[in-house]
Amino acid sequence: MLRGVGDDAAVIRARPLCVVSVDAMVDGIHFRLAEGWATGAQVGWRALAGALSDIAAMGAEAGEACIVLGVPAGLPERQALELVRGAGALAQQTGTAIVGGDVVAAPALTVSITVLGWAEREAQLVGRDGAAAGDLVGVTGRLGGSGAGTAILEGRALGGAEREQLLARVRAPSPRLREGRALAAAGVSAMIDLSDGLASDAGHIGRASGVRLRVALDSLPLQAGVSDVCAELGVAPQQLAATAGEDYELCFCVAPSARATVQRALDGAGLAAVTWIGEVVKGAPGVALLDARGEEVALAGFERRW
Amino acid sequence: MLRGVGDDAAVIRARPLCVVSVDAMVDGIHFRLAEGWATGAQVGWRALAGALSDIAAMGAEAGEACIVLGVPAGLPERQALELVRGAGALAQQTGTAIVGGDVVAAPALTVSITVLGWAEREAQLVGRDGAAAGDLVGVTGRLGGSGAGTAILEGRALGGAEREQLLARVRAPSPRLREGRALAAAGVSAMIDLSDGLASDAGHIGRASGVRLRVALDSLPLQAGVSDVCAELGVAPQQLAATAGEDYELCFCVAPSARATVQRALDGAGLAAVTWIGEVVKGAPGVALLDARGEEVALAGFERRW
Repeated sequence: MLRGVGDDAAVIRARPLCVVSVDAMVDGIHFRLAEGWATGAQVGWRALAGALSDIAAMGAEAGEACIVLGVPAGLPERQALELVRGAGALAQQTGTAIVGGDVVAAPALTVSITVLGWAEREAQLVGRDGAAAGDLVGVTGRLGGSGAGTAILEGRALGGAEREQLLARVRAPSPRLREGRALAAAGVSAMIDLSDGLASDAGHIGRASGVRLRVALDSLPLQAGVSDVCAELGVAPQQLAATAGEDYELCFCVAPSARATVQRALDGAGLAAVTWIGEVVKGAPGVALLDARGEEVALAGFERRW
Repeated sequence: MLRGVGDDAAVIRARPLCVVSVDAMVDGIHFRLAEGWATGAQVGWRALAGALSDIAAMGAEAGEACIVLGVPAGLPERQALELVRGAGALAQQTGTAIVGGDVVAAPALTVSITVLGWAEREAQLVGRDGAAAGDLVGVTGRLGGSGAGTAILEGRALGGAEREQLLARVRAPSPRLREGRALAAAGVSAMIDLSDGLASDAGHIGRASGVRLRVALDSLPLQAGVSDVCAELGVAPQQLAATAGEDYELCFCVAPSARATVQRALDGAGLAAVTWIGEVVKGAPGVALLDARGEEVALAGFERRW
């Protein structure tokens, strides 16, 4: 960074391709500070995680972030600073420089984060539009944790032994930056981050690519503890995993010939594992969710509840 | 733009230096939509103008913008779209590409805009920190229009024959992008945009540069109609011009040897004229506002009222 906070604008030495994404979160809608859903620091962390997750899904390297805070009249300054500190902690962990921002008065605490990512060549980046019939569909990590954690925060479930890990998934999710770069380098054809839930997000890949993703619900990798919460809720764990969103894992498509390359790419220490969950076929662009008998389940039954 | 709205993130072909700025505005605080202060389109225009003004003050070229809208439950969709259209009109006029954004629910209409600007070399950009003793202080265009227009909107003044032009200054300000690039090319040593008002903003240059800017209040170029409004308000027009802010003109410092070059640089068709308003001296870093007798007026008397 050549110039940062304190001038009219930040100045950054660029690389050939700039990747930009914004993400906003509002108290009372995306989190509930007053009800103790999260500390200010966790809100800051989560807002930056959401924005960085888009950079991860492009296969780009994280670069810089600008944070706009909308601060209500009654909010203690300590809490606003805590929020910036929380974002700062994830920034440090991911090598992201916080280069600027703005603080404005607002009726509710609002965090809006812009992140810049960088790449050297177009071929290093992955869009949503490259999936082809015959590709395999994979997903990183484990699903449903954020949805189950939110149900606990809402008081709709108690959770079992993994209660704290489920809450951590809501409060401090990890953007899959290293995984995104490794998958892009391994040659995946399309990629998206799971912010709205697999049922929606895999559909985005299908529609952008003009293909149909067939996903076997039973193959979805559940986060430990999700089944316990789903038993309390009376919901099938696969339904929660496919629709609850905000897990910030990556869903991608790749030619079968590159399956082993992808597997090896995510073998590195500390990287989220890959689970193969389906295949890409010709057909109505979008996603088909398949039950245990291999039959399509109507999407209407899988709308997001949280 | 290589990828835009519809993928996880926008992808832009970069130039060597990237300049980033963010600006946020909230209904009820920065504007009052319900009271007819501005149309949705004007709110969108103004939010983008505020962000682009920072790019102008660096001497960079405008590039791309991302718009985050916080939309309250009751707001008609038409009004939210109008806001994006208003920003789009200024984007088109300034050659800015709107490459992405986010829409979230929020308790009040909130617009947060990130803009990227570009430059080839560091020497093309101007910070706040380069002013030197002996430099002249200049300002583009005319001041006080936005403050006077706001007083009319607040019902505190009626305004005279120039009432509409004063209102237009609040509702649809022009970021001085061409002027900023011309001034940077002419070799100005420091530059800032007047968003908080000259009394604050010139002080930022002084403190960042470690010098004192001496500004003659009587030399401030008043927008037509400001004096009429000030007569109604019982305020000295120079006080309004120095403190009301949001005129989005540029204040800069330059060595006396480059005075003619600066003058010629802003001679082009449609560019705002330069007015010379003071000089840079050694002394306590900041700004000194001088009355007609050349005596320093206490800054406390010039706090921003709007």
